[in-house]
Formats: sequence, C-alpha cells, structure tokens
Amino acid sequence: MESVILLLELVGTLAFSISGALTGLRKNMDIFGVCILGLTTAVGGGVIRDLILGSTPPATFQNPIYAAVAVAAALVLFLPQVRHLLMWDQALFDRSLFWMDTAGLGIFTVMGIRAAFGQLVQPGLFLLVFVGVVTGAGGGVLRDVLAGDTPYIFVKHVYASASLAGALVCALMWRTVGEIPAMLTGVGTVALIRCLSAHYHWNLPHAHD
Amino acid sequence: MESVILLLELVGTLAFSISGALTGLRKNMDIFGVCILGLTTAVGGGVIRDLILGSTPPATFQNPIYAAVAVAAALVLFLPQVRHLLMWDQALFDRSLFWMDTAGLGIFTVMGIRAAFGQLVQPGLFLLVFVGVVTGAGGGVLRDVLAGDTPYIFVKHVYASASLAGALVCALMWRTVGEIPAMLTGVGTVALIRCLSAHYHWNLPHAHD
Amino acid sequence: MESVILLLELVGTLAFSISGALTGLRKNMDIFGVCILGLTTAVGGGVIRDLILGSTPPATFQNPIYAAVAVAAALVLFLPQVRHLLMWDQALFDRSLFWMDTAGLGIFTVMGIRAAFGQLVQPGLFLLVFVGVVTGAGGGVLRDVLAGDTPYIFVKHVYASASLAGALVCALMWRTVGEIPAMLTGVGTVALIRCLSAHYHWNLPHAHD
Repeated sequence: MESVILLLELVGTLAFSISGALTGLRKNMDIFGVCILGLTTAVGGGVIRDLILGSTPPATFQNPIYAAVAVAAALVLFLPQVRHLLMWDQALFDRSLFWMDTAGLGIFTVMGIRAAFGQLVQPGLFLLVFVGVVTGAGGGVLRDVLAGDTPYIFVKHVYASASLAGALVCALMWRTVGEIPAMLTGVGTVALIRCLSAHYHWNLPHAHD
Repeated sequence: MESVILLLELVGTLAFSISGALTGLRKNMDIFGVCILGLTTAVGGGVIRDLILGSTPPATFQNPIYAAVAVAAALVLFLPQVRHLLMWDQALFDRSLFWMDTAGLGIFTVMGIRAAFGQLVQPGLFLLVFVGVVTGAGGGVLRDVLAGDTPYIFVKHVYASASLAGALVCALMWRTVGEIPAMLTGVGTVALIRCLSAHYHWNLPHAHD
Repeated sequence: MESVILLLELVGTLAFSISGALTGLRKNMDIFGVCILGLTTAVGGGVIRDLILGSTPPATFQNPIYAAVAVAAALVLFLPQVRHLLMWDQALFDRSLFWMDTAGLGIFTVMGIRAAFGQLVQPGLFLLVFVGVVTGAGGGVLRDVLAGDTPYIFVKHVYASASLAGALVCALMWRTVGEIPAMLTGVGTVALIRCLSAHYHWNLPHAHD
C-alpha cells in the first residue's frame, strides 16, 4: 500500500522532471540550469502545498529520494545519446511524454488531497480541491515562470481543469469509499479528461468581441 | 462591525478579480485562465500575507466566499454582452475601475495590518507596514508575473507607495485611536494619494545620467 | 562573535541590494521600484528560507536593520552623482561588485545553513544544502523574475553551483569542526570557485545535438 503510493509518486516525479529538463534544454541552459529546472518542476508543487498546509519543512526535504530521482532524470537527459535514443521515434516519445505527464498530474493532484487530509483536522472541500490543483499544476507554473514562458496552464487547454475535476471527484469520494478508491478514481478522472480532450481536440472557450 | 469588514473585503475582492480577469482577456486566455488570473489577483496578496504570518492554511481557504466572488466576477466578465454593456461608456468604465482598484488597494492594505495584529503578540512597525503592502499589492504582482508583464508596481507610479503611506498611517494610529478609525484613515490615505496623483499626474522620479 | 555575523550579514545585504537596485536602474524604474527591487534581492532569499523552515514571521521582519540598509543603499545609488563617482572607474566598480556579490552569496549560503541548524532538531544533509542555496541564490531569482529577466542562475555559469559547493562543505564540516570554522570554510569555498571560474572562464557544459 505505502509502496504503491511511493511508486506512483516516483512516476510523477520522473515525468515532471523530464518536462522541466526538456524546457531547460530547449532554452539552451547549462547542465546546472537543466537540473534545477527539472528539480523545481518535480518538487515545486509539493513544496507550495506544504507551505500552504503549514507542514514545514516540506516533505520533499525530509526524504531526498524524489529530488534525487528528479536530478538523475535531468542529468540523463543531458546526454545527447540518450536524447537521440529517446527521440528516435518522435511520435512515440511525444506520446510517452503525454502519458507520463498525465500520470504525474493525476498522481500529484490526489497526493495533495491526501496530504491535506493528513495535516488538517477537518479540511473543507474548497481547500482540498485547491491544494490538489496546486500540487498537481504548481510545479509546471514555477517551471514556466522561471523559464520566462507564459505558464502552460494558461495556454494548454484542459490541463489544470483536468486536475480540478480529478481533485473534486477524489475529495468528494474520500470519506465515502475510502482513501485508495478515491485516489484511483481521481487519477482516472484526470487521465480520462486529458485523453478525451487530446483525442477530440477539446478547447475551452476564448472570449470574442 | 464584522459585516462592514466583510463588505469592504468583498468590494476589494471584486475589484482585484476584475483587474485580473481583464488582464487574462487582454492576453486572449481561455475561460479557465481568465478565472485563475482573477482568483490569483484577488486572493494572492492575502495568501502571501498568511504564509508570512505563519497562519496556515491561509484564511481564504477556510472561507471560500472570497474565492467564489472572484471566480464569479471573472466568469461574468467572460460574457461579451456584459463586457459590451460595461464598456459602453469607456471613460466611465475606466473611472469605475480606478475607484474599485483604489478601494481594493486601501482595504487590503489595512486588512493585512489587522491580520498581523490578530496573529502576532507584539508586531513591530516595519512588519506591520510590510505585511500591509504585501496584502495590498501582492495579488497584482502575482497577476503580472503570471501574465508575463512587468509588475504594475514597478511601472504604475504612486501605486505601491500609496499603499505604503496608508499602511504607515494605519499602523501608527492603531493603538492610539482604535481599530476602526485607524483602518478608515488608512483607506482614506490610500484613496487621497491615488486621487491626487491621478489628478495632478504625479510621477516618482526616474534616474537620469 | 555575534557582531562578526552581523557585520557579514550587512555586507551581504549591501551587495545584494546594490545588484537589485542596479537592475532596477537599468530597467528605468522609478525610485520606488529601485528600492523595492533592492530590498527584494537583499532579503528575499532569507524570507523564502524562513518560510521553508516554518520560522514565521521571517527574521527580516523582526529586525528591520537589514531592510533599512538595503533601502538606504538603493536610495543612495539613485543619486546620479553617486553613480558617476562609483562608476568613474568602470573596471574597478565591476570588480568591487563581483567581490561584494561573491561575499553576499557565500555569507547568505552559510547563514541559511546556520538558520536550519537553529530551527530544526535533526536537519538532514539534503535539507541543509537546499536551504543554503535558496538563501544564497533565492533573492537573485526573485529579482530577475520581477524584473522580467531570465534568472541569473540559469545564465551565469558557476553561480548557484558555487553556492551548492560551499553549502555542502559547510554542512559536512559543521558537526566536526564547529560552527565558525565550518562557516568560514563554506564562504571560502564559494569565493574560491567564483574566483577560479571568473579567472579561467569556466563554463558548465551545454547540451549539443
């Protein structure tokens, strides 16, 4: 049970670190910048969450395995051979990245809700959902602000809204069906929405004058 | 008394959410981005303040009415009919926005000082003023950083300095004249400085070589 | 002993405030913006550190001397006469700035580690190093994000990595050789690496395809 959660968190960490490191490589950063950006993307959401919950120092500093995985992933991506190998089939690479990123978003969202239940006595629904979305999408916002890009969540349609839907489902089901089913349904909701939106090219409405 | 404060806070929330949502609309964000930017602008200053004061989880997550008002305002602004109606008289709209923004700045500044007095035993003057300015101007800084603009407080002359003056007046008067008169004088100071600076086109000095 | 630490901290504050104020002047900000940017650069790293350590309100708000020094430095730099005088010999000015910035980076890095030892019962190595780097390099990241620049640590090679090496040395030596020797060695490590990298034009590797 604990080891399932550890495994899920490591997958999410890996996915987010890769997305951060790829951003750093695209911006032609040096090896230190690529590692910092990978690390920030992977652990940033959890750090903001722990600051909001008042659980200091943040969990990520107590157990360095997540940071170690994030930095290792960024370092490996720095090798041109690895990048060539990974991107040998660009379509496959993009699809893998999409799935890992979706997994990371879903996993971190429900982990945020789990942390709020663990830290607070009687967390309200709004707090739970907000903390879930911050944990899921916060690392990516930090990555984009540091890299000088417009945050992904404002540009990539149906990203943070998938996290929001998953957080809502997970938080609402928590007390009725128990922790694990609620978390799995939350991750499933995020994955389903991301999938459908990618397949049908869903877009959220823009304003028109 | 409590209901006066609630009303003032709701006016400030509304004003700041509108300024965030208009920024998102100007950047052609989708409906989710517009709501997020409205929400962040409205509650961001208070969240930073609560993190600094160590009052976690931040008040805004315990009572979702502020977030609800902020998101509702952003959603309403998303409707083209509403924007057409509001901007039918552009000069009137700009003037209303100026006044609501000024009200928000003043109200949030003194609310920050109130929160510091409520949370700490013996807050020093520097902490009080700093917390007031962060609460007043912090949401706007987050809005601009997320939207990729240079923060307003570095560009818009006499904005954060009005908040600083109001915070100083309010903090200095607090123990002598009591909470409510100090807060009203603080809001009045902010409004007066903003007004005079707009009317006389005050500018703070720039460096020349 | 306490007064040595105070003096070191004031040197670091001065150096970082100058770097923030010069950024603001370069961006043609008004006097308020220049002061805010100087202040943020000087105290920002320490504030993030204290939030991570859960030591609220952050130390900088309890003792305003650091903020006062930072704002005074920014105000003085605002005077064209002072800038002309300081930059009369541009090479000398650049060299002084390099040394003050290096001193600030080293001093703030080891001060971060000292704060972590003071606040936590059994801090791990990873937490110590991370907190050291955040305290040392965090103010500069805030400065660059607020000024709309790509953060210095992603561009300026061997800056945050010098802080990292110094933090590692300081944290590892702390319990064996005592507080003061560990801090001095940490500052020395940062200075040595910055010096060597400037002299030999060290660069961290960039990725090539």
